[in-house]
Amino acid sequence: MKQYAQMDKEELTALKGELEAAFSKHKEKGKKLNMTRGVPSNEQLSLCNELLTCLSMEDYLSENGTDCRNYGGIDGIPEMKKIFADLLDVTPDEVVVGGNSSLALMFDNVAVNMSHGVRDGTSWQSQGQIKFLCPSPGYDRHFTICNYFHIDMIPIAMGQDGPDMDAIEKAVSSDPMIKGIWCVPKYSNPTGIVYSDETVKRFARLKPAANDFRIYWDNAYAFHDLGSKKVEIPNIIRLCEEAGNPNMAYVFASFSKVSFAGASVTCIASSKSNCEFIRKRLTVQTIGPDKLNQLRHVRFYKSAKGVLAHMEEHAAILRPKFKLVADTLSRELDGTGIAEWTNPSGGYFVSFDALQDCAKKIVALCAQAGVTLTPAGATYPNGNDPQDRNIRIAPTCPSLADLGSALEIFCAAVKLVSVEKYLLSK
Amino acid sequence: MKQYAQMDKEELTALKGELEAAFSKHKEKGKKLNMTRGVPSNEQLSLCNELLTCLSMEDYLSENGTDCRNYGGIDGIPEMKKIFADLLDVTPDEVVVGGNSSLALMFDNVAVNMSHGVRDGTSWQSQGQIKFLCPSPGYDRHFTICNYFHIDMIPIAMGQDGPDMDAIEKAVSSDPMIKGIWCVPKYSNPTGIVYSDETVKRFARLKPAANDFRIYWDNAYAFHDLGSKKVEIPNIIRLCEEAGNPNMAYVFASFSKVSFAGASVTCIASSKSNCEFIRKRLTVQTIGPDKLNQLRHVRFYKSAKGVLAHMEEHAAILRPKFKLVADTLSRELDGTGIAEWTNPSGGYFVSFDALQDCAKKIVALCAQAGVTLTPAGATYPNGNDPQDRNIRIAPTCPSLADLGSALEIFCAAVKLVSVEKYLLSK
Repeated sequence: MKQYAQMDKEELTALKGELEAAFSKHKEKGKKLNMTRGVPSNEQLSLCNELLTCLSMEDYLSENGTDCRNYGGIDGIPEMKKIFADLLDVTPDEVVVGGNSSLALMFDNVAVNMSHGVRDGTSWQSQGQIKFLCPSPGYDRHFTICNYFHIDMIPIAMGQDGPDMDAIEKAVSSDPMIKGIWCVPKYSNPTGIVYSDETVKRFARLKPAANDFRIYWDNAYAFHDLGSKKVEIPNIIRLCEEAGNPNMAYVFASFSKVSFAGASVTCIASSKSNCEFIRKRLTVQTIGPDKLNQLRHVRFYKSAKGVLAHMEEHAAILRPKFKLVADTLSRELDGTGIAEWTNPSGGYFVSFDALQDCAKKIVALCAQAGVTLTPAGATYPNGNDPQDRNIRIAPTCPSLADLGSALEIFCAAVKLVSVEKYLLSK
Repeated sequence: MKQYAQMDKEELTALKGELEAAFSKHKEKGKKLNMTRGVPSNEQLSLCNELLTCLSMEDYLSENGTDCRNYGGIDGIPEMKKIFADLLDVTPDEVVVGGNSSLALMFDNVAVNMSHGVRDGTSWQSQGQIKFLCPSPGYDRHFTICNYFHIDMIPIAMGQDGPDMDAIEKAVSSDPMIKGIWCVPKYSNPTGIVYSDETVKRFARLKPAANDFRIYWDNAYAFHDLGSKKVEIPNIIRLCEEAGNPNMAYVFASFSKVSFAGASVTCIASSKSNCEFIRKRLTVQTIGPDKLNQLRHVRFYKSAKGVLAHMEEHAAILRPKFKLVADTLSRELDGTGIAEWTNPSGGYFVSFDALQDCAKKIVALCAQAGVTLTPAGATYPNGNDPQDRNIRIAPTCPSLADLGSALEIFCAAVKLVSVEKYLLSK
């Protein structure tokens, strides 16, 4: 395909006509297609429908005799802790099991550090205007938490090996008002890249100016490989320990894309000492997480190995969808020079970069043809993508047929907006 | 029985000898009995074991088509909201369904008002040293939340009709730093009293000096009648509305003592407008509560009426236990003049007042004979019962036989400590 940048005005005008005609047909079809959220499909959810029935009327005791129906237990039943510990390569006393939302764990963790400080130290809020580093594009809901707490966000560029570590090291070591950083280290949301070993090691070796600096290590896609090859990242908790920063990282993990998205189990993993602080606070805050739901997960998955085997069933469903995205984008856009995109080997997203100043227009145009995309800019702090290029594609939920239709409309919109951009410059 | 106060030294000394001998026998038995917490018994929990099995592998849709397995829905499925709304006599849009812990809802609500203010107003924390009124004796975990947020607690005396409303009206109308009050309006923890209609009306008509004053109306025992007669209290939300204080009350309710204590559903009920603010925040904070667990409750209880019918089964189990407490205390202590106690017609506790400066000694003595009681003072702010009189008796969890043994030991300890007190004054 010819590069749009090399077309003259006549060629562009002709192409525009064709594209407009094609796009009108898409509009006429009146489809309603949603590609906004990283939501598992019905088919994926049904993989674990046995969770709905796996307990019996006599099955409510955990292995240590705890009656999971009753009060008691602030941080998870032992067998659930063990599964998380095995999956994350930590010990059970480095795990605090939460409820059904890892977002809630992260929010809560920021909230308490704002109001009470890390490890009951000086509260972040009393120290003036604090800041978080925000590798971008990133996960919009991380940024929304910062917004909620009026935490300044400093974007950090993302590369193929993770965020720009030079920039992070410089900022963290020089500015004591930088208190945190959001990371999705494996199959990063939305780029799908995996932090390199060196990147993870550099994180662990940070020398923060603030002794209450924390890494929010949202390992949301820790077991979410698409390929048969399991991707491993180094253990941030062990590396932090070795680097003399034992309490610097909070690791978050979730079964929301393992079992039922709305009714899963989650955990925070950190140093034993951090976990003790968290437990102490939890006794003030809650009666503890739903132990019966943990027991359901234990009965169904049995072990960390069981979880990983289950994830291969997810991968079998997701692989064709990610392949369809890759194939369609390649077929429609290769050689045009109007876009770049990622081909992740795991996670839930494909990150798409249009020409500068085109992302918002593309999303708006797609909406006209019934395709809802995540708002352009959502992957940047304050919803502000300075180049207006990034669009997050979430291919997991629609059927293959719907996804195909949506991608066709999407590519048509990308081309039309790009042609218009070049025409304006002629 | 002769009043201890009227005994002379000789009589007291003789009695002391008898009591010590009796108490030694109790100690020798080496029992381990726990009367610390308002925890349902195994028999009660088993009333709803069908919750463990009532969903099938095809049953996961709510009535509006929501897939309860997936993400989505921040404040509860419609049929669960309706059950809470019917039980609390409000509309579904005055209800936000939470997770398994109403304590977490209360903590969270205080946390957000501290950091962001009520209805996104001026944060409580930015206004200086704020205060809560704390009707006492009261629920220790309410006070612990205040402690956690460094909120000053002002004890308010409890009477037969509720807390001292004269004191509350005076304090609230004159001091803008008073931002909240903790109430357990029905079968108050621990006294078991029910706020009178007039008390509730006076709450609704408060004229707070602070426009961000809030009533934390923890209706934890809203459906927890022991007798066949249902006790009703006026609707605080409607009354606040009528009194021109539409947003002043947050009502909390929970199924933790209806279904499974550790895996129930909870809600906050408040004005529509307050609920909108809460929902807006929740979208930042969480993916929403576990909808499958709500669906389980809907399938099992079917309606508010179903819940109330179920509560009669709880009452049938609890009535003999409360009767045993009343009978034993009456048999052992009537006429002695050394104690007063409540005979609640609902709720989970009996409140016991010993002679001044005796509660801690009684609890310590009971511990020597293997009976664990809630620490004396726990029912007062900062664990400080100024008269050292109050002890909370929680009779729900032990078997009748164990409860009988524990109460015998308890009464023996009460008598022994009281006799020693009188002897010291001779």
